[in-house]
Amino acid sequence: MTFETVQRRELVRITDDVQAAVDEAKVAEGMALVSAMHITAGVWVNDDEPGLHHDVLEWLDKLAPPTWNGGESNEVARQLIPNPGDYRHHAGGEDNGDAHLKNLIIHHQVVVPITNGRLDLGPWQQVFYCEFDGQRAKRLVIKVLGE
Amino acid sequence: MTFETVQRRELVRITDDVQAAVDEAKVAEGMALVSAMHITAGVWVNDDEPGLHHDVLEWLDKLAPPTWNGGESNEVARQLIPNPGDYRHHAGGEDNGDAHLKNLIIHHQVVVPITNGRLDLGPWQQVFYCEFDGQRAKRLVIKVLGE
Amino acid sequence: MTFETVQRRELVRITDDVQAAVDEAKVAEGMALVSAMHITAGVWVNDDEPGLHHDVLEWLDKLAPPTWNGGESNEVARQLIPNPGDYRHHAGGEDNGDAHLKNLIIHHQVVVPITNGRLDLGPWQQVFYCEFDGQRAKRLVIKVLGE
Repeated sequence: MTFETVQRRELVRITDDVQAAVDEAKVAEGMALVSAMHITAGVWVNDDEPGLHHDVLEWLDKLAPPTWNGGESNEVARQLIPNPGDYRHHAGGEDNGDAHLKNLIIHHQVVVPITNGRLDLGPWQQVFYCEFDGQRAKRLVIKVLGE
Repeated sequence: MTFETVQRRELVRITDDVQAAVDEAKVAEGMALVSAMHITAGVWVNDDEPGLHHDVLEWLDKLAPPTWNGGESNEVARQLIPNPGDYRHHAGGEDNGDAHLKNLIIHHQVVVPITNGRLDLGPWQQVFYCEFDGQRAKRLVIKVLGE
Repeated sequence: MTFETVQRRELVRITDDVQAAVDEAKVAEGMALVSAMHITAGVWVNDDEPGLHHDVLEWLDKLAPPTWNGGESNEVARQLIPNPGDYRHHAGGEDNGDAHLKNLIIHHQVVVPITNGRLDLGPWQQVFYCEFDGQRAKRLVIKVLGE
């Protein structure tokens, strides 16, 4: 499936899309790999709660500070990143060094268990695509295995 | 399988439980998905060494500070989290914002390779369920695929 | 496959090795689990760009400071780790506490989707073995499932 987010950073709930892929594969017992094809995006399973989403994105900005919004990094960011205004990765003209670090913290994939043809998720678990450098076409692969 | 930990945070070694699921599935070559059904718990593969466990839990408290123990956050925590005493997620009455962040750092699942019917782990690798908000019933799914 | 890196920390690109395992398994549609057998190493999928690699390794040293290089931890490290010169894990004579924490942040495994017999990676995605405590023999398992 493909994404082109309006915002540079955005969370997109994809639980229903993953279930649709499982339906199509007609797998009753198995697992579904949900994997971003990009190195500046993540996939996570967590709560569909806006306050939490705000907390997480803000927290990730502290751990892996962006520079493209003006480099308004706080004191911690300045110590965590040698030159927060200038990741080495930016030497080639990129400005998304923070998105690569966020991809590594969050991980770019999850594997969802399938039982009786349904995603076997807990009551609060929802699957999200986490865009950290969007506003352009991005892709995600879903692979379903089982029987 | 289910857990109800005595402590709010607790590590439970589950290597033998995962092997038992592999035995039951009679799979010789394949993989076992071990996935928590909760968004405030993790699953990791690491050393069964109490000093290391202490190090990791303390380190996670610095990266994702709890508020329920009095908010004794240090200076780093105060900079990483905008209002460490008040995650936005807590607006609905929750007090486990830190456990959600820990779930995202640690990841809620691992996939263990299976060779000749045995978990194909390195000499020091043990599978742990990592409870970050326990003292209530929690569940974990194990799915075994292969032949 | 096995590794014995020259440096204590080193990134080794293994995309071709994973593809070779898929070729050998003759799987056209499925997934390949790529999992380190050690608790002081990681596996990631990201860009093959030296500046980024330098950024990431330096950033991990800030989040999980090493002590074996003289404990030149900065102020953030001193606050994140209670006694950066002395992880509890080091009580038994080890000096690789930081490598365990890095293993937990980065994760020790990825699952790569397979389509038409090829690793289904995005244009910039490469698979890397991330050694955090090398200069000795280390192993990695690849398991291919599908049909």
